[in-house]
Amino acid sequence: MKIIIDAMGGDNAPQAPVMGGIQANREYGTSVILVGRGEEILKVLQDNGIQQLPAGVEIAHASEVVEVCDNPSTAFREKKDSSLTVGLNLLKSGQGDAFVSAGSTGALLAAATLLVKRIKGVRRAALAPVVPTGGGGAVLIDCGANVKCPPEYLLQFAFLGSYYAEHVLGRPEPRVGLLNNGAEPSKGTDLQVEVYPLLKKAGDEGRIHFTGNVEAREAVEGAVDVIVADGYSGNIFLKTMEGTALFLARELKKMFKKNLLTKLAALMVSGGLKNFKKLMDSGEVGGTALLGISRPVIKAHGSSDAYAIKNAVRQASDFARSGMIESITENIGQMRLPASAGGKEEF
Amino acid sequence: MKIIIDAMGGDNAPQAPVMGGIQANREYGTSVILVGRGEEILKVLQDNGIQQLPAGVEIAHASEVVEVCDNPSTAFREKKDSSLTVGLNLLKSGQGDAFVSAGSTGALLAAATLLVKRIKGVRRAALAPVVPTGGGGAVLIDCGANVKCPPEYLLQFAFLGSYYAEHVLGRPEPRVGLLNNGAEPSKGTDLQVEVYPLLKKAGDEGRIHFTGNVEAREAVEGAVDVIVADGYSGNIFLKTMEGTALFLARELKKMFKKNLLTKLAALMVSGGLKNFKKLMDSGEVGGTALLGISRPVIKAHGSSDAYAIKNAVRQASDFARSGMIESITENIGQMRLPASAGGKEEF
Repeated sequence: MKIIIDAMGGDNAPQAPVMGGIQANREYGTSVILVGRGEEILKVLQDNGIQQLPAGVEIAHASEVVEVCDNPSTAFREKKDSSLTVGLNLLKSGQGDAFVSAGSTGALLAAATLLVKRIKGVRRAALAPVVPTGGGGAVLIDCGANVKCPPEYLLQFAFLGSYYAEHVLGRPEPRVGLLNNGAEPSKGTDLQVEVYPLLKKAGDEGRIHFTGNVEAREAVEGAVDVIVADGYSGNIFLKTMEGTALFLARELKKMFKKNLLTKLAALMVSGGLKNFKKLMDSGEVGGTALLGISRPVIKAHGSSDAYAIKNAVRQASDFARSGMIESITENIGQMRLPASAGGKEEF
Repeated sequence: MKIIIDAMGGDNAPQAPVMGGIQANREYGTSVILVGRGEEILKVLQDNGIQQLPAGVEIAHASEVVEVCDNPSTAFREKKDSSLTVGLNLLKSGQGDAFVSAGSTGALLAAATLLVKRIKGVRRAALAPVVPTGGGGAVLIDCGANVKCPPEYLLQFAFLGSYYAEHVLGRPEPRVGLLNNGAEPSKGTDLQVEVYPLLKKAGDEGRIHFTGNVEAREAVEGAVDVIVADGYSGNIFLKTMEGTALFLARELKKMFKKNLLTKLAALMVSGGLKNFKKLMDSGEVGGTALLGISRPVIKAHGSSDAYAIKNAVRQASDFARSGMIESITENIGQMRLPASAGGKEEF
């Protein structure tokens, strides 16, 4: 397994991606290719006391860096020698098994779609983070890549999410729910009302395990393994979770910092508190899978530290090893919608 | 101040609404009218050791009860002698200052709209709970009453929410944000893209204090006083908050219940834990205001206990005392959209 890492992407680049790659190499024995400015990568290694490239660690030089101010849709084309473009070309040509970047989501999405391409038959790639739930986590798809979605996109998201939950998370027969404001099939905006029968049909035919509409509250409680949403709603869901967790964590901190007694109490539950924090920490999962692309791509959080990148590399390995893309490719017919039902017959 | 209480609405009726009313009467000196089956109300009073109706507590008999199985849109009409219909008619005729019900949201919404009517010029009534945020709470409007919204509804929600935040919550110049998946004006579905310039214009003209799009995470963190959303998105936001809080509370409980030491720690922070729980407890706020109706109506949570009803009665008094409906009526021209911009010129 060889993972290509965008050494220049993210708030803490190149330090975090380089050292995250090194840690993954040390801990999991994963081979990595660090893509970016060679001299900067070498400096990070030296600063961390690494004089020689460890076995299984390569550097692929790329002189340019995609910046926040670059146009996400065209950055990869305008900066052909960026770590993003060079890294994705390595992925495309098979010189690595997966690509990890903590850089701009928009730029990664555009570049992956246009350089590496989607799986033949998949209409749109989607962002699919694993969100913490009472059921040990669920795949949320989409959460922002596709704000305006015709029904067919959501049908495909249901399949892509199911494959990920089954192959990468190891959930047999993953339960798929359509994020909605009520359980009845009539609930939601026009989009949900139109998507429901498509998912129902796919469920009835045994192509997915559709359990119906799922309200946000039940989704967080763990009612399903896959939460299907358009990018707008999925984003509201994800960001509300993050915000609520942060808000409550801050209030909890206040509570424990109140006086000597409460500070002592914090010490007494310090192990539990650490696990509690981990629960909502995106760095633990590592990153968000870009599903629908013909090769595994993981978007790590922009604020990732080396630990989060290490986890993203592990996740990328799991993704690549799972064979899920091959499985989707073989079964693509299952997630096609006939033209008569608004689908695009020709892929 | 006299508050009309639906004594038969909610999971814990008639016990909770009756005793909630009694408690509000005792603690705040609020006059209340308990609407429902006289004999059942009297029994609750007797069971609680109250032999005589306290001063300021009246009973208005209504023989019927709106049940879960009733059609929400027509229940008030089919059951003319229900506590819902009788109570709202009392409100309409001015025999009370506000109405509180923990019964079916849909039935209350339909009945309030059709019996009590909307404020002249208001296109749709909306559900506007105060959600806990890092900024001490924000008005979320709408959260489920109107799933399909033309842009004008959201423009009006912004006004209704602003009036509530200013008059009832006491926030001068309440900051209004449009719930979205990004800050830029181009973000969101067609709806948000169309609503943004309407809110921007109202803001530029000083009619509201529009601060732009607000992402869900920043909304929870307290960036705004009013969160404007269509009913579908608002519902996702609200229910995700609730779910996340419940999920984390459960994990926290597990942490504290682990062993003797952690149980001791829980005792040491018990005061703080109580406040922490209160933070996310809808019963603390009391209920959700139905904004846009020509008289104050509060929907209490279906699972309300007497304490939650008492708080809802206090909230209803604040609402009635605020003069916000009168203010809206006077300034209704400010929230009209010209027909040329998709508005309904005639109200």
